[in-house]
Formats: sequence, C-alpha cells, structure tokens
Amino acid sequence: MKGFKFAGICAGIKKNGGKDLGLIYCEKPASAAALFTRNKVMAAPVILGKEKIKNGSCQAVLVNSGNANCFTGKKGIADAIACSKLLGDCLDIDEDLVLVSSTGVIGANLPMDKFEAGIPEIVKHLSSEGMDDFADAILTTDTHRKMVKQNGEIGNKIFSIMGIAKGSGMIRPDMATMLAFICTDAEISPQDLKICLSSANEKSFNRITIDGDTSTNDTLLVFANGSSDVKINNMDSKIVFQNALDEVCFQLAKMVVKDGEGATKFVQIIVKGAATKEDAFKASEAIAHSNLVKTAIYGEDPNWGRITAAAGRSGAQVVPERMDLFFDDQPLVLNGNWMGAEAEKNTAQIMKNSEITITLNLNLGHATDHFFFCDFSEDYVKINADYRT
Amino acid sequence: MKGFKFAGICAGIKKNGGKDLGLIYCEKPASAAALFTRNKVMAAPVILGKEKIKNGSCQAVLVNSGNANCFTGKKGIADAIACSKLLGDCLDIDEDLVLVSSTGVIGANLPMDKFEAGIPEIVKHLSSEGMDDFADAILTTDTHRKMVKQNGEIGNKIFSIMGIAKGSGMIRPDMATMLAFICTDAEISPQDLKICLSSANEKSFNRITIDGDTSTNDTLLVFANGSSDVKINNMDSKIVFQNALDEVCFQLAKMVVKDGEGATKFVQIIVKGAATKEDAFKASEAIAHSNLVKTAIYGEDPNWGRITAAAGRSGAQVVPERMDLFFDDQPLVLNGNWMGAEAEKNTAQIMKNSEITITLNLNLGHATDHFFFCDFSEDYVKINADYRT
Repeated sequence: MKGFKFAGICAGIKKNGGKDLGLIYCEKPASAAALFTRNKVMAAPVILGKEKIKNGSCQAVLVNSGNANCFTGKKGIADAIACSKLLGDCLDIDEDLVLVSSTGVIGANLPMDKFEAGIPEIVKHLSSEGMDDFADAILTTDTHRKMVKQNGEIGNKIFSIMGIAKGSGMIRPDMATMLAFICTDAEISPQDLKICLSSANEKSFNRITIDGDTSTNDTLLVFANGSSDVKINNMDSKIVFQNALDEVCFQLAKMVVKDGEGATKFVQIIVKGAATKEDAFKASEAIAHSNLVKTAIYGEDPNWGRITAAAGRSGAQVVPERMDLFFDDQPLVLNGNWMGAEAEKNTAQIMKNSEITITLNLNLGHATDHFFFCDFSEDYVKINADYRT
Repeated sequence: MKGFKFAGICAGIKKNGGKDLGLIYCEKPASAAALFTRNKVMAAPVILGKEKIKNGSCQAVLVNSGNANCFTGKKGIADAIACSKLLGDCLDIDEDLVLVSSTGVIGANLPMDKFEAGIPEIVKHLSSEGMDDFADAILTTDTHRKMVKQNGEIGNKIFSIMGIAKGSGMIRPDMATMLAFICTDAEISPQDLKICLSSANEKSFNRITIDGDTSTNDTLLVFANGSSDVKINNMDSKIVFQNALDEVCFQLAKMVVKDGEGATKFVQIIVKGAATKEDAFKASEAIAHSNLVKTAIYGEDPNWGRITAAAGRSGAQVVPERMDLFFDDQPLVLNGNWMGAEAEKNTAQIMKNSEITITLNLNLGHATDHFFFCDFSEDYVKINADYRT
C-alpha cells in the first residue's frame, strides 16, 4: 500500500531467537485512532499510547514480542519513552508521532540493550514489502501470521485496508494477548476514524470473548494515510469504508479465535428472541465462556443441557419451556423439549465439523447477539501450565 | 445420631451399576431449611422442593444420582411428585414431608420403573448406621464420599451436626453439581435454622466458586430433629450452633474443592486492603475463576502477572504500584515491585505444595474477602469432554 513501509527482525528479545521486533512506518503523518485494554493493570506502552493517540496523528509504531513491559512501574514507562525517542531519532520524525506496543511475559523489564541495537537496525530493513516480516515479529504463542486485505471502491476510485494481528487466541485472555494494526490508504479524519474503529471493534474483537477479560496490553490501532486519494467525508463513503473496516476486523478476529490455544473447532453462538439486547449479550457471553460447553464441544458432544444451563445462570431472562436450540440447521430442542434420538444423532454428526453455528432462541422478544469462540482441549492446559518455563 | 436413619442402594439408574438411590429418614418430622440453586433453569426436584420447604418441616429426603431430572418439563415435575407420593406411602408419612433431589445428566426423564421398584426396596434398608451407603449413593464424578461430623456443647449437653455432600467439584459448575444434606439433633425453629444455614452457606459453599455459576440442581438441606434435647433458643446457644454449622459447611465445601475434577491443588485466595467489600469479592472471584491462574497453579508456576491482571480486569479498584502479593508467607510483589529471583525461587518451592494460600493486598482500604478453588489440569478437560458418553 502506497506510503507504508514495514519491517520485522530478530532483536534477541525472545528466548527462542525468532523475529521479535516489528515496525510500521508511514512516509507522512497519518490520521490515527486506537482502542486499548480496559484492564486497570495497563502495560507501560498502553499508558503511553493512550496519551499520544489523543493528537489523532501517528507516523510509526514499534512492536516487540517476548516482553509485555507490563507491571514494570516507572522504569517501564521510561523504557517505553526511550524506545519512542530512539526510533524518532532514527527515522528523523517527531517522537510524539511514534507509538510503541509490547506483548509477552508480564513483570520483566524490557532488555534495553536489545532495543538500543535493534531500533537502528530495523529502520534499515523498512520496505513496502515487509508486512510478512512485521506480521511474524509480533507473534507469541500464535501458530501462524494473521493478515487480511480488503479493497473498497468509492466514485470509481479504489482504497485498501490491510490488517495485521497477533492473538494467542486465549479463550479468556487475561494477559498480553491481542494486538492488531490496520493500515489504509483512504483519507479520513481522526475523529471519523475513531468512530469507525469503535463500531468495527464492537462487532468483531468485542465478540470473541476477548474484551470481557481484557488483557493488560490489548491494542487495536489504525492508520489512514490518504495515499489512495479516496476521501471518506460523507455518509455514502463512510458506509463503504465502515463495511470494509468491519470485514478486516471480523476476519482478523476470526483468525485469532481459530488459532486459539489448543483450539480444534470454531463456534458461533447466536442468541435470538431475547427480551432485551442486554439479555442477548449476557446469554451468548455466558455460553461462549463456559468451560463445560467448551469441553463438550471438544468432545464433539451436543451437550444442550450445559448450553441451556449456562443461559440460565447468565442473568438473562429465560423460560426453559420456550427455548429452541439448533446446531447449524438441526433443531435439538424445541419449546424446551428434546427432539429425540434421531435429532441427537444428526447433531452429533454436525459436531464433527470444524466450524459450528449454535443458535439459541429464547422466544421472549426480538433482541439478538452473538459470540465467536473455540473449544477447549487438553492442549490449552498444557500451553498455559508451562507458559513461563 | 438419634432419630435419623439412612440407606443407599443400587436401583439401576446409573449406567455403571453403582449405588444411585439414597434416603434420609427422620423418625418424627424435623425442623428443616434449604437453599437451592439460583439458576433460572431449575431441575424439577428444585422447583418442587422450593415450595415444599416453605412449611419448615421435613421427614424424609430421597436422592438419586445418574439423572438430574432437569429440563424435563411437566413430565419431570409429575415424576418428582410421583416419587414423593410413593415414598410417603412406603414410609406411611405425609407426602408433604417428603423431599426429592436429583443429580446427573440433564434432559433425560427419570426411569420411573427403577424408582417404582427401588423406593419400596430402599425403605427396607433404612438403618441408623446407613450413612456411608447414603453418602455413596449420591455421588457422580466424585472420587470418594464426603462426610463431616461436628459436636457442640450447650449447658453441659452435647449436640451433633452431621453433613454429607456430593460435588463433582467442577471449577465452574454449570450443571447438576452440588448437593449437601445436614442432620442435627439440636432443637431449633425452622426460621432460625434458615438464618443459620444462609450464614454458614455464605462463608463456605458461596466461596468455592460454586454459587456464581449455580447449577440447575444445587441443594443444601438441613434437618434438626431435636433428639439431643439441646435447645437453640437464645443468643449464646445460637452462636455455638452457628459455629458448629459453619464448620460442617466449611469442611464439606473444602472436600468438594479438593475432589475437584482433575484437581491437584487446593488454593485459598485472600484479597485484603480493598476499598470496599464488593471490590474484595470481585477481585478474589476473578482470580479464583481465571483459567490462566488455574493452569499456572497446575504448572506450579507462581505467575503473579496473571493474578494481578485478573484483579485488574475484575472491576475492583486497583493501583498496580500499591499491590503486595504473597504465596503463603513469601512476598513475591511489594508495592508493585517484583521481589527478584530469590523470592521467585522460594515461591516456586511453595507452589509444589498441595495446599497454597495466595494473599493479594490492594492497600487501598480495609475490606477483605476470600475464595477457595483448585487448579486446572488436562484431566478436567478429559472428564468433561466425555461426560455423557
């Protein structure tokens, strides 16, 4: 994409020697908007980023994996500032236009010697073709890089949005987990960009059981450099841009869930017919977070008792005798009645698929909500029992 | 205990042929109080029991394992009533004094032929020594029976409280999980008994991460038959009785956690110095429910980043730079600073123990709360992926 350059190198921050330092650089200052974790234990780069993004402009973001720079106190903030400053010097841009972002283990100070050597080095590697290296450098327990590109057309002109994410796909991500960086060549004001980003986030990253248990480092950042000459400045163009941004965020969020630690299946739960929007949210969230539902899905068991029980404890208004439950198009419960052995057999067959849609109709109103989640296997436990060793 | 009889038999309800029908019988009607699940998807015996207990008197409770009689609609209610009626007839007591209780798989109707044969049979087995058989008959995925006895003394007279529980010790028990039956020979009004039971429950079963995710069948029932001639009718005697009941509930709750599915460690999290009682509850609950904390404990990793991050996302007021974190008596974080490699080494040693106390001091006020929980191993996933097969 015109005007953006990327790089990713091995700076020696990760113990395994893999790529661990990434950089996105815009040739001129871009409109920028960002959303950060709601966790009160915030990583140093998040504390800093929240302040810096207020000016609505950004020209570079430096991302490291292997160390979250979280719970590192004043030293952590000073380190993050020192990295910004050094990068600003190396790129010859204002340090106010530099953001930093970190992911990895909590509680250890950044190895500043690696950054002092790595930052001048990475600047040399910047290239318009460097996005793969960047995407690799920000990974932690991810099994593969996560990139999406989407084009949009406004008045016969084409604009692009490219997103790169990292998410170890933790099912309840309590820590340094989810980073996503989005670049677009559309021209849009920082204010409009923030509105579009919030809206896209609400439908994607906020529906993959990520935000409820916000990590200390979650960051979603978008740059718009205007290099396509496509202006997003009226209702029609905003709709096109929003749709494209929604799609990029949704695809990235889906990739994060699919690459979930130990995940073998990708599941969408849709709660329909709820009395209120809040009820629909509560019921779908409770089901998507339930360890018992997740383990049953891993066991390919259409355990509808656990799904309805999770809805029952969610705080949402539910009436068991009204509930309908579908696995894909197969009804297993209608009006609170189990549909019998044949339906169960068909459902068991559906459970063998790698993507499953579960629909719970509460039949109490018209509100709907949904969540995307993955199953829960022994490998999740293995990965997380041994994470720091 | 004078005036109580027990039985437990194999009635053919469980597929594995083990004991699955239990009975407690009081020779005369006893004061009774009960607490039930808060889940809106309630099992039939819970719906029925909530009504029946209102009269404050009970003479028999029939408990089956292997089938929760939940999500069984009108048929489920009719089956539960039929069982009560048959037992009342066999014991020659008013069916209003009979409670029924079920635990096991959700969504299947009770095999009524087994109850029609089993109920007349179990009555023949009633014996004052039958408590072990009863305790075995109510188990599901439990690995052993759970019984506690506690004596108290008031005015040179001794009273006893005996508790029998079943709990598969699910970490987030979304389904037919926790049953506890308590018998005492003290004399106490149903009203006072309910107050004492609620108070004991709040400190025990409601602090083992059970009640937040109430199952569809959770039941805690206490009978007081007065056979000891000890009257609980003034402040002094109530304090003695409350303490004894607290201890019985606490020990049973602890047994449930220790026998948690796949559990290898018993952990107490204490949150101190919270700004409000609600904050202390929120932070301790979030930590006790965190899969990442649980898996780290299983891995014997004092992963304080995950503990503090769970507190950070709990909604409680927290300031990272104020936090102190102890494992048993070993400080690992003081004023938000990691205490270094030596402290980490000592903590890692403590993590090898089978019982661990973790104390998080928020240093923002004077409120305290606690939770008991267990770790989270591959075996939890195995047990719950295959539960219905």
